[in-house]
Amino acid sequence: MGRGVVGLLQRESASLAATGRTLQLTRVASRTPRPEVDLGGAAFSTDLADLTAADDVDVVVEVIGGEEDAKTLFAAAIAANKHVVTANKALIALHGNELMRDARRAGIFVGIEAAVAGGIPIINALTRGLPANRIEWLAGIINGTSNYILTAMSEGGQDFATALREAQRLGYAEPDPTFDVEGIDAAHKLAILAGLAFGTPFDFASVHVEGIADVDAEDVGYARELGYRIKPLGIARRTARGVEARVHPCLTPESDLIAKVDGVMNAVQVRGDAVGSTLYVGPGAGAGPTASAVVADLVELARGGADSCAVFPIEGDWESSPIGEVSCAHYLNVPAEDQPGVFADVAQTLGRHGISIEGVIQRAEAVRGARGSEWVPIVILTDVVAELDAERAVADIEKLAGVTGRVRRIRVANLENSDGE
Amino acid sequence: MGRGVVGLLQRESASLAATGRTLQLTRVASRTPRPEVDLGGAAFSTDLADLTAADDVDVVVEVIGGEEDAKTLFAAAIAANKHVVTANKALIALHGNELMRDARRAGIFVGIEAAVAGGIPIINALTRGLPANRIEWLAGIINGTSNYILTAMSEGGQDFATALREAQRLGYAEPDPTFDVEGIDAAHKLAILAGLAFGTPFDFASVHVEGIADVDAEDVGYARELGYRIKPLGIARRTARGVEARVHPCLTPESDLIAKVDGVMNAVQVRGDAVGSTLYVGPGAGAGPTASAVVADLVELARGGADSCAVFPIEGDWESSPIGEVSCAHYLNVPAEDQPGVFADVAQTLGRHGISIEGVIQRAEAVRGARGSEWVPIVILTDVVAELDAERAVADIEKLAGVTGRVRRIRVANLENSDGE
Repeated sequence: MGRGVVGLLQRESASLAATGRTLQLTRVASRTPRPEVDLGGAAFSTDLADLTAADDVDVVVEVIGGEEDAKTLFAAAIAANKHVVTANKALIALHGNELMRDARRAGIFVGIEAAVAGGIPIINALTRGLPANRIEWLAGIINGTSNYILTAMSEGGQDFATALREAQRLGYAEPDPTFDVEGIDAAHKLAILAGLAFGTPFDFASVHVEGIADVDAEDVGYARELGYRIKPLGIARRTARGVEARVHPCLTPESDLIAKVDGVMNAVQVRGDAVGSTLYVGPGAGAGPTASAVVADLVELARGGADSCAVFPIEGDWESSPIGEVSCAHYLNVPAEDQPGVFADVAQTLGRHGISIEGVIQRAEAVRGARGSEWVPIVILTDVVAELDAERAVADIEKLAGVTGRVRRIRVANLENSDGE
Repeated sequence: MGRGVVGLLQRESASLAATGRTLQLTRVASRTPRPEVDLGGAAFSTDLADLTAADDVDVVVEVIGGEEDAKTLFAAAIAANKHVVTANKALIALHGNELMRDARRAGIFVGIEAAVAGGIPIINALTRGLPANRIEWLAGIINGTSNYILTAMSEGGQDFATALREAQRLGYAEPDPTFDVEGIDAAHKLAILAGLAFGTPFDFASVHVEGIADVDAEDVGYARELGYRIKPLGIARRTARGVEARVHPCLTPESDLIAKVDGVMNAVQVRGDAVGSTLYVGPGAGAGPTASAVVADLVELARGGADSCAVFPIEGDWESSPIGEVSCAHYLNVPAEDQPGVFADVAQTLGRHGISIEGVIQRAEAVRGARGSEWVPIVILTDVVAELDAERAVADIEKLAGVTGRVRRIRVANLENSDGE
């Protein structure tokens, strides 16, 4: 990561110099031994504190990741009145409010373009491109690993485990993929995007997070049959009470452009009241995209850019809406015994909870279950329904005599057709 | 247009004021009588010169369109040391170099976000989001009218005239649609994007321009059969010698996301050497999107944004590459007599010019031509071929005995698979 930044920074220094502005790499620190990379005369140290102690450092670029060391470095930079550019989404999502507050007090510039969606200049778009808009919602594919896996399941018919192994083999997933497939990485990024979009503090703790590990290859196939793709979305929405933010797999209508963003690509769709809907697509990770974003922040600073603190979250009043207040359509996959009447029972149960059925798929062929019994999946698409009603209806369906196991439930994202649902 | 800006500006003034920055509408001028809109205490005049003469004006916002009055207003603003924000693509494409040069000398801020692709913050993305990249090419659907018409031809099977009438009825096309359907509007925008992307002066005169009026509904259908959509693209590419810029209908692989941007939506895809490919999609016209872009520039200025002249084209050396130097695959629609041997003659002619055939569609059913003779279209997809070779081959094909009329030729845009082709 640092290597990519160093290379691009050196090139950009030369081109900026032609316009009378200076950006010079003076020092590099790494907790590991000196990398095999041309530092162009910059001093090297294995002590991060050497950066903030040095007089010839005006900006600290942090691409080390993790929380503790990065936080210490950021705080030391503020204390030493040095600007900060960081690619660290966990740091900003978890400690950004206090760090930004201290940075604002110290009057230093903070650049976080690289922290979300890699090379897509989405921070820039939200804060400098769309500042005149009241943002109503945003929805993003902001974890490339999850998107790669769901795409492989959708296009290649692979199951989750196979798609994950393939992603690991290609370097798209870490050996320990937890942060990515369980949605935590996406939730960090969503907390940042939501804060910038709505002018509220970053609130990672309130993001509802579900991973993609429970999505079955069968669900992906049924979703396609119903005219949807399953995408790993982060959705943040302005509600009557405050802000709703959630990360989970979503059925997304195949007619939505974001449903067609496949593989490791990232995309963020933003709905503003003046502009309408805009979409930003690009690579969400990698040395080149990250360096592109980091150096963009450095160039903005070198150009004498606007007070970055002016564009970052206001410490205002807001309230987070829990997942229980979300309303959306649902995909339900009900494992049922292959006998008459079960579908009627399921439909009746939904009806009792006020839930209408918008679409059904029921296969003629029975599937042999784990315990040797025969069952058929009943696949149902509901209309828009309150989360708690959906939960209660599912619990009741699972108690029905002909239902043989757990109901798989995936929310539907009708981004363009309602308020973020 | 002005109405949308006034409304959004008034709202934004209030929200900016909370952060200690000021943006106040002091004067409005219009060449037509006072509009029925709440100007919130701003003075009104029908003389544009009143704006630049007034002491209480720091920024002139120009949304009047046209060339002469706008140019006079811009020049007067520079002379009076007032910043300028403009939505006028023709003005910038044709006179931007001298206006920007004078603005730079005077040290004033110039905002042109609204001049290209409406509400998509593409100027911002190019200049502030991707400054660390060497831009290799960009390709955009930057005329909503043309995209609407080609989408209607593709989805509804309408012919050009019908789709145009429908666009006019819906207000997507002007009563005189020349600027849009002949590609001039897109060429203005492409000249601006190319200048910003490559750091060269705006060079409208060198943009090769072809409209969409010659695209037949039949071509759209054949393109789909071959796995393509026909899109109205503006393509700008860095070449060995300089810059190539062209606006014309293109066969675009249906697997490219930009091929799926339909209706009046705009999209710009940008390839940078560090970031790779990023895509920006949104509404390209309308009062709301334009106001969103205009007010974004005003907010940047109010925040004490970076010297805008730092981000605009350098007066460097560059050379424009003529269309004759372009190489790309071609779609050919050859009207031929329904008799044996014609296809062989066509194939042989292509071969003589060194052109390979990648795909062919030949219908069994003959079509009755205007003169009563029967003919069948021979549809050919060639490999990548130099423009002049394609021209010469087509001229020779039109001379063949069994060929009954003009060959329709449409270039293919394989954006992701080669250098902008």
